[in-house]
Parts: sequence; C-alpha cells; structure tokens
Amino acid sequence: MISRTDAEAMDRHDPLAAWRDQFVIPDDRLIYLDGNSLGRLPKRTVARLAEVINNEWAGDLIGSWDHWVDLPGRVGDRLAPLIGAGPGEVIVHDSTSINIYQLLHATLRLQPDRPVIAIDPADFPTDTYIAEGVAKTLGYELRHGFDQLDDVAVCVRSLVDYRSAALVDLAAETARASAAGALVIWDLSHAVGAVPIDVAAAQVDLAVGCTYKYLNGGPGAPAFCYVAARLQAQIEQPIHGWFGQRDQFAMAEVYDPQPDLRRMLIGTPSVLALAAAEEGIALSAEAGIAAIAAKSTALTGLAIERCDHHGLMTSTPRDPTRRGAHVAVHHAQAPTMVARLAARRVIADLRQPDIVRLGCSALTTRYTDVWDGVNAISQLANELDGGAP
Amino acid sequence: MISRTDAEAMDRHDPLAAWRDQFVIPDDRLIYLDGNSLGRLPKRTVARLAEVINNEWAGDLIGSWDHWVDLPGRVGDRLAPLIGAGPGEVIVHDSTSINIYQLLHATLRLQPDRPVIAIDPADFPTDTYIAEGVAKTLGYELRHGFDQLDDVAVCVRSLVDYRSAALVDLAAETARASAAGALVIWDLSHAVGAVPIDVAAAQVDLAVGCTYKYLNGGPGAPAFCYVAARLQAQIEQPIHGWFGQRDQFAMAEVYDPQPDLRRMLIGTPSVLALAAAEEGIALSAEAGIAAIAAKSTALTGLAIERCDHHGLMTSTPRDPTRRGAHVAVHHAQAPTMVARLAARRVIADLRQPDIVRLGCSALTTRYTDVWDGVNAISQLANELDGGAP
Repeated sequence: MISRTDAEAMDRHDPLAAWRDQFVIPDDRLIYLDGNSLGRLPKRTVARLAEVINNEWAGDLIGSWDHWVDLPGRVGDRLAPLIGAGPGEVIVHDSTSINIYQLLHATLRLQPDRPVIAIDPADFPTDTYIAEGVAKTLGYELRHGFDQLDDVAVCVRSLVDYRSAALVDLAAETARASAAGALVIWDLSHAVGAVPIDVAAAQVDLAVGCTYKYLNGGPGAPAFCYVAARLQAQIEQPIHGWFGQRDQFAMAEVYDPQPDLRRMLIGTPSVLALAAAEEGIALSAEAGIAAIAAKSTALTGLAIERCDHHGLMTSTPRDPTRRGAHVAVHHAQAPTMVARLAARRVIADLRQPDIVRLGCSALTTRYTDVWDGVNAISQLANELDGGAP
Repeated sequence: MISRTDAEAMDRHDPLAAWRDQFVIPDDRLIYLDGNSLGRLPKRTVARLAEVINNEWAGDLIGSWDHWVDLPGRVGDRLAPLIGAGPGEVIVHDSTSINIYQLLHATLRLQPDRPVIAIDPADFPTDTYIAEGVAKTLGYELRHGFDQLDDVAVCVRSLVDYRSAALVDLAAETARASAAGALVIWDLSHAVGAVPIDVAAAQVDLAVGCTYKYLNGGPGAPAFCYVAARLQAQIEQPIHGWFGQRDQFAMAEVYDPQPDLRRMLIGTPSVLALAAAEEGIALSAEAGIAAIAAKSTALTGLAIERCDHHGLMTSTPRDPTRRGAHVAVHHAQAPTMVARLAARRVIADLRQPDIVRLGCSALTTRYTDVWDGVNAISQLANELDGGAP
C-alpha cells in the first residue's frame, strides 16, 4: 500500500518535478487530472505569443510571413523526435480530423483494388465519422474491426484508446497489416508526448495526432501528420490549397503540389496557434520522452494501485507497456461524480456513460495529485453508493 | 489636382480618423498599404488574448470549453451584419480553402445532373486549385469563365478581383446564374469589411471569406462561411468531424450532423485564432460598413487621381461602385519597385508579374499614406525608367 506520505516522497524525488515550474499554475492546490484533454499553459508560450503579437504582427506586419511560412514544417521537426520520425517527416497544420481525411483520400488512391476502410467503432468519434464520410463520398465499404485485412485498403486506428488507455502494439499491428497489404493511418492523439513511440522502428507509414493534450500546445492547437519519407512523393491529398502549392507566391494557374510533406498544407495557417504549439511541443521534446514515459507509467501505476486499494473498478491495462498515460475509473454515476469532483477542485474528465478519466500528464501532474484524486473519487463513491453524504 | 495639404485636410476631417487609435501602431511614420494582405493589430485583441491565455486557458483550463465551443457561431454572428446576413447564417472556422472545398462538395450533391464546375482562372489561386482538386476527385469538368451556365452545377468566383480590385455586380450575377440553374459560391475575401455587401438583398446562396485582411483578425485568422438559412438543412459537407456532430459530447458512433450551420465545423478549432478574429471583426462591425466603404472609396479615388497625375498606369476601375478597396498600379519592374518601396518604409504588395498593389484599409490608412505612397512610387518609376537614382 502506498501512503500519502509515500506519494509526497515520490514528488520530492521526481526528476521531472522542476518542469512543473515551467507552467503557469495560478492555483497550486487545484488537482488537475485533465492534461490529456487540455494541457496546461507553458510560461514560455506567454512570452512567445507576446513576441508574435506585438513585434511580429503589429511591428513587422506582412514582412513576418517571410518566416511564418516555415512554421508548419519547423514545428513538425520539433515534434519529430517525440515519435521517432526524421526531419521533414512531420508537419503541423489544421486539425486531426482534416489530416485523417486527407490521408484517407491519399491512401485510397494508392490501393486501387481494395474496397474496404477498416475502423474501430469504439475509437474516438472524429476518426470514425471522418472515415464514414469518405466511405460515403467515394463508395467504400466501412468495416468494424481489424481481424480481416485481406481486402482492406486502409485502417484508421488509435495507438492509445481514448477511454481505457489500452495501447496497441504499434510494430506488430503495422507488420500484420502490411503483410495483408493494408495501410494503417495511426492516430497518436492520446499517445504522443506520453508514451515512447518509434515510427521508424515500427515501420509506420502514416500517422496523425493532436498537440493540445500532452504536448500542451493550447486550446484547439493544430494537429500533426507524419508520412514516412519513402511515401511522400506518392501522397496526393484532395484539398488543394495555395499553401500546398510549389512556389506558392508565383500564383500559377495550375496546382502543382510541393515536392515534400508541405503538400499536406491547405490554406493560410493560424500563426498564433502554430507559435503556441511550438512552445508546448519544444518543452516535451526538451524534457525527453523517455523521462516523460517513465513518470507517466509511475503515475498511472499509482492510480491503479489506489483504485485497487479503494475497491474502484478500472479498465486500464495493468501491464505498464500496454497502457497510455491515463486511467479509466468506472462508476455507474460517473457524470455526477465528475461534477462533484470539480466542486472539490479535482478536475477529471467524463467519458459517457460510466468513465471518470484521470489524465497523468508527466510534466505537470504530481504524485500527490493522483493520490488525492483517487482518494476523492473513493469518498464520492462511498457517498453515492449510500454512505455518508 | 489634390495637393499634400489637401490630403492632410482630408485626414483632419476624416470621421473614421479616431479608429486608427484603436490599433497598435509602433511606427506612426510607416506607410502601410498592405492591410488587405494582413490587417493591423487591434489594441483590444491584445487585451482579449491576454484574458484567454492567462484566465481562460491557464486558470479555468478545460472548463473554458463550456463557452469556447460557441465561438465559431458567435464570431459568425458578429460578422453577419457586415455582409447583410442574419443570425445563424455565418460561421467562422478553418481556412477559406477548406470552406470552399466543403461547399463545393455540398453544392455538387444538390445539382445531380450538371457536369461542370465554373471558375475564373485569373481568380485567387486557392479558389481555382480547390475547384480543380474537387473536379478531379469527383469527375467533373472544369470550365473557365461564366458566360455559359446552362450545364454548370456551381461557380466559384470572387466578388472583388485580388489583382485589379474590379467588383462584380453581386445581385445581377447571382440572378443570372440562378436563372440558368447554377449555384454560386462567392468568395468575399477581398470585399468583406471594405465594400457594402448585402447577401440577403442579392439573394446569395453561399459565400466564404477571409478575416485576416480588412477585418484585422490576425495572421492566418479563420475564415467564414455563409449559407442562406433556407439552404442549411440541405448542406451535406464531406469532412465529418466531431465538432459538426449533433450532441457532440455524447460521442455517438454514427455521424449525425448538427441541424444548423454548425454542421460545417470539423475538428477542434483554435481558440486563440477565433478570439483574435472576434475582436477584429467586432471593430469593423462597430465602425459600420457604410462609413468604412465611404472612406475606402475616397482613399482609392485619391490613389487613382494621384496615379493619373504622375502618369502611372492602373487597371483598377474608375467607377467607385465597381471597385474594392485596393488599387493596382502596373509597372514592368514591379518586383524591384516593391522591394525599394519597403526600403523607404512604404509597404505595398507585389502581385506577379507587374502589379504594385496598394491596400486602403479604412480603419488604419490615412489619406496622407496614400498620397505619400503614390508619390514614392512615382519617384521610383522615374528612377527605374532611367531618371535620377
């Protein structure tokens, strides 16, 4: 059994503890277990946005586009080491939904005689909605599950389940799909900046993900996409905007896509959003994914141990190599519980119908946050199950 | 002939002069004639972003999504009066390119037996690239020009030409297309916040536009789209993201689009970008489009008069009801001229191959800016044409 005193000691000896000081935290007593929905504000982001707003926008005006135009690729290169990608293999732009849409269209072109798109209906909604929309427009069959892949053109699937935190074996599942002739678009949204990912070692072809969760890129921060260098020249995505055009400012009449991953770009990107994302991403890259993943494992391990102690049910895998950085606690009155937790200054996330989701974002979450958070859930469970109010 | 003293008097009597004080202008001597590429920074945007960053993001964290989720529609409602639209008819999200893409797919569904998409190849590149991409994916013919519309499903065309500033007759051209059974997606990017637009009176069905030019929404600010209320229920756009889903946080497995214009939404929008856009848009709405348009006409009229005086060639229409708020000055050495103007602290825009484009953004441009800007062009033209260096 781990006591609160033990948790305090874990915080004292935490090699990442100092990173919390890199964030703006107005209320140090708030127990924020939702950094996997919206990461906290890095202090350097405040400084960077002030620079972008006051000097680059107000001061240098249109001239700033000379360097702003490089932001999607530059921010992508900052993110690349977090997933084992090389320079030029990651670009940051638009939303995860749009990136999945583009890559689905592009991969279907590469797989002409395969009539099926495979998804997991329990995956994050936007992934399944996007796939359903593309299947409808282009006349594909939508299949639920990844058991049969022989006629599948492309799978859309998440590395870490947004509810249970179950983590798929990236290399094994990529190899299995590849052996069957299917491509996979991996959604790394709930994994990036939380668990070790090596897209090169796993021979991943395509991936997308989100930067506003563990990467602390800001509310609605742009997404990223990864396309292995060997595939980039074959990617023909369907939304032909002027930022994807080779020699963009020549304004030629005919679309001629960029020779590299910039061909994923569409319209003018938000500079404010990209600048904020760059700072959050850079923080995680500098802390290092190995240290982040080690602490995530310890935090989620603590949460599971405390759930066991209190008799709370969790569906999150006990094998630390098979889970992401959040823990799903199940309770029949989860909606009420999440609301009451908030009233006690414990911020968790509700996932309908019965999950209280606890995010353990390594750079900002303390061991005592996890200990106290699970303790509060246990107290509430006792009250809701008929104990003292 | 209008003297510089006359221009100074025009500034003194300008009813909109005080609005310039609402913007952050670090160098009052800079002659910025590019507010139609990137509008200036409103002071209230600085305050709003500080509030969003420090209080809403760092302070209230995930709880802020309770109101952030309303931003795309709320900012759209702020913009609506500038184009004569009603509440719920405008929504602000993603880029102009993406909005055109969505509306093209949606309108082609409504026009099943018409095999043609009509564009103007001289239109802004992203409009033509997007149309070409959609035509390729769905197997449509792409036609250049709008003379023959009998077999056209949908036209994509700009209200104000991004080079010459020529302004199309919105009501007449909408009626002509409608009589031929064609829909029109109007791109208002170079018109909104500069000229009077009444989509209701002109019976416009669909429009898109940009908020980072005359609306001062910030670099890469999100775009807007307008869909007439009578058409909204028929709009089936192809990128099915979770923000377009009815009862989004129920996270149902099957896509069921919002009953209203929110069905255009895709992924999680950038809150920083939307908040900045809201302030810029609100400023223009408060100044009023009638006053803005009157000053735009006077500024462009002054520019044309001064071009005539100096013997400079312009392709911008002389009829003030037939032009937008910029002026195209033609010169064989336009690239050199734009660079040398910048060295003299006159910021204009180059449009290849031979256009020096002068933007007259009414809330921030002075009559003396226009007078001095054209004067500088005249001096440079003399130097480049073989006169004194």
